[in-house]
Amino acid sequence: LTTAIIVAAGAGKRFGNQVPKQFLPVGGKPMLYYSLRAFDRCSDVDGLVVVVPPGREEYVDKELVRRYNIASVRQIVAGGNERQDSVEAGLEVVPSHTTLIAIHDGARPLVTIGTIQAVLSAADKHGAAVPGVSPKDTTKRVLDGKVAETLDRSSLVCIQTPQAFHYDIIRRAYKKAYAEGFVATDDAALVERLGYTVHVVQGDPRNVKVTTADDLAFVELLLAEGDVNCE
Amino acid sequence: LTTAIIVAAGAGKRFGNQVPKQFLPVGGKPMLYYSLRAFDRCSDVDGLVVVVPPGREEYVDKELVRRYNIASVRQIVAGGNERQDSVEAGLEVVPSHTTLIAIHDGARPLVTIGTIQAVLSAADKHGAAVPGVSPKDTTKRVLDGKVAETLDRSSLVCIQTPQAFHYDIIRRAYKKAYAEGFVATDDAALVERLGYTVHVVQGDPRNVKVTTADDLAFVELLLAEGDVNCE
Repeated sequence: LTTAIIVAAGAGKRFGNQVPKQFLPVGGKPMLYYSLRAFDRCSDVDGLVVVVPPGREEYVDKELVRRYNIASVRQIVAGGNERQDSVEAGLEVVPSHTTLIAIHDGARPLVTIGTIQAVLSAADKHGAAVPGVSPKDTTKRVLDGKVAETLDRSSLVCIQTPQAFHYDIIRRAYKKAYAEGFVATDDAALVERLGYTVHVVQGDPRNVKVTTADDLAFVELLLAEGDVNCE
Repeated sequence: LTTAIIVAAGAGKRFGNQVPKQFLPVGGKPMLYYSLRAFDRCSDVDGLVVVVPPGREEYVDKELVRRYNIASVRQIVAGGNERQDSVEAGLEVVPSHTTLIAIHDGARPLVTIGTIQAVLSAADKHGAAVPGVSPKDTTKRVLDGKVAETLDRSSLVCIQTPQAFHYDIIRRAYKKAYAEGFVATDDAALVERLGYTVHVVQGDPRNVKVTTADDLAFVELLLAEGDVNCE
């Protein structure tokens, strides 16, 4: 059984808005809708768990899941203070018999079904997989405002979501992280700490994380062009 | 004397277009126009050298420099095979008495006068400066399709242009690179090889390098909002 956890629990304070960014309208619908739809339509995914800000469960159930008939949603649960706590809240309620888990940021509305399939397929085979794209700019390591090192761009990847894992691996990775007080915003980093190899599959430059108003405008633009999730 | 070299010599083959991308229309004008205008309007810049694809000198002179009255352009020269060769072609024709050089990619049309000033000021003081922004995604080092290392995001910066240098430093850096057969697409990397410290100033997330049709659409969107270069 394959379960996707859609993480949409951020308070969105950085965005300077009262409404958390994952619920801001884009293309006429709340941003979170597009991620839910992509995973709902992906035949490799059996069910969805949606993690939302505490108190928003009913809103998401009524205004997203029921309104747009996202049939594969199994649970809507409240998230925690940090992203890691929200993923953990999702992991705790995944249906039994789940063997493969995908974890996706609700703030990446342009994820394609193709990317979901590619990541799930690689994780099924190897245990852990993430999508990545080459950085557009030269990347340097900086210390005290001065360049410490120019990194070899050809060996770098910018990591996106969904990230996918065997259920037992991601559970153990989370257990270890909590036991040791390790906090990260990247799920694969927890799995790497466990000593597992994480495979990287080709991501999609359009699968951006919306963090600014410019990002939202970019997503609006692409949605106006067509059904981006299904390309 | 401060001279800016605007590098716009790419053949633009990756863009899948007959017209090099720096001449594609955006906001009703060739993309290169916006960089030329930003540097022309920046009071800290005394003159511009524009490096263009061989055979395009007259087109740029007539359709950009004269048409839009970019008064501070001193030279239009043909570039070489690699970006590094094009910058070198520009360095060879900068006006005498130039003490400070800014090098800018013509494919970054949204550069602001504020960024140009900040980079020039830091380079004047320290010898070498570049603008950088924090990466949006987790960045990992990858080997053979597997994660080798998750990098500490807080110490990484994505480097943009303009980059600015004392004239004698960038000249020596280029001389050393050619003597040793070292090729890079990042000018600061050549200066780092010389043993100089490169300072990083705050860049602007909007100062993207246009490499895809999506990037061009994003720039078009922002230009429609107003005079982005002068914010």
